[in-house]
Amino acid sequence: MRNEFHADLATVSHLLVEMAHQVRAAMRQATRALLTADRRAAEAVITGDGEIDARYREVEERVCELLARQAPVASDLRAMITALHVAADLERMGDLADHVAKTALRRHPSPAVPAELRPIFTEMDGVADRMAEKIAGVLADPDAELAAELDRDDDAMDDLHKQLFGVVLGADWPYGVETAIDATLLGRFYERFADHAVNAGEHVVYLITGESAAAQ
Amino acid sequence: MRNEFHADLATVSHLLVEMAHQVRAAMRQATRALLTADRRAAEAVITGDGEIDARYREVEERVCELLARQAPVASDLRAMITALHVAADLERMGDLADHVAKTALRRHPSPAVPAELRPIFTEMDGVADRMAEKIAGVLADPDAELAAELDRDDDAMDDLHKQLFGVVLGADWPYGVETAIDATLLGRFYERFADHAVNAGEHVVYLITGESAAAQ
Repeated sequence: MRNEFHADLATVSHLLVEMAHQVRAAMRQATRALLTADRRAAEAVITGDGEIDARYREVEERVCELLARQAPVASDLRAMITALHVAADLERMGDLADHVAKTALRRHPSPAVPAELRPIFTEMDGVADRMAEKIAGVLADPDAELAAELDRDDDAMDDLHKQLFGVVLGADWPYGVETAIDATLLGRFYERFADHAVNAGEHVVYLITGESAAAQ
Repeated sequence: MRNEFHADLATVSHLLVEMAHQVRAAMRQATRALLTADRRAAEAVITGDGEIDARYREVEERVCELLARQAPVASDLRAMITALHVAADLERMGDLADHVAKTALRRHPSPAVPAELRPIFTEMDGVADRMAEKIAGVLADPDAELAAELDRDDDAMDDLHKQLFGVVLGADWPYGVETAIDATLLGRFYERFADHAVNAGEHVVYLITGESAAAQ
């Protein structure tokens, strides 16, 4: 019974790791679509989001089945509830990559992001990428220290977000309101991606240490 | 055992109804803070968000306790998982009210929203208010038709969101980029509030009918 539970838990963990890889690739591809006005890349992200959603539902079904069949208690039960939380965060991260891709598509063939902002979005993508990588890492091999690094990554994302506003609000911003709005929403998509990565990391830490961060 | 389960389920439902009332009041108060530059109202929303978060954790604890103690299956298990989803949506709706309040506070004593946009935000608040009311309603007395109305409310919110961009992007927008950014983010907070209300409603419908809407 215990062995069976752990086999099922491993299946769920494996699905979560796959989801983390998928959302990581999605955000990377969405950024490429954004910065190079690549229509095919944008469309691939949008199509791929359906697969991330399907995997999310699969995690939910597996967890429910497992709860019903095995009635786990204590730390096993906690692992199941954590899996649901992490899956929800990853599903949302996929949505945010999808939003970036849709913004790229809406402005295509023009680039949605002017030259001045490209370095900032490139850096935001880099932070998002390493956060998604860390989530995949801690899910495959739980490590509270690696999860804790996500907070520092999130601080880096917040700094980039502030820099972005600095450029858009600068006296010499020449692109008008529409481009400012795109930049604002895009900035928020990357920032939220990072927030969900932090949340997912906190859930994994809770699983490892039993210590909960307060709901944000 | 069944009676005990239903008593526990009623406690959880009651907590969710309370959360729905709290987030409804929070968004209403945040809008007042926004439109009247009312610092105390803004601060009350921010303080109150801690209570919503605490109630969210209470729902989670109750559900985990119940899963561990009663090991429910089939529809009872589904009810528990639904409760977790709804609680997460409500917690996030509280965060969005908190974001509106913080925007009001950041611009205080100036109003964050110029006169031209006040009618739109007043209407967005009206839609948000009736959506939160319906969530409280369907939680207290599950009703798939009432829950389905949330989709129409969400369409109304989307229309208002488009109107908002119409004003901000109009040739005669006199307020510059900073106010456009505030309006963009505020618009997104109300729109996301509505999205989470729709999600919460879909979870309740799933509970009643067994039919799931696809993850969005």
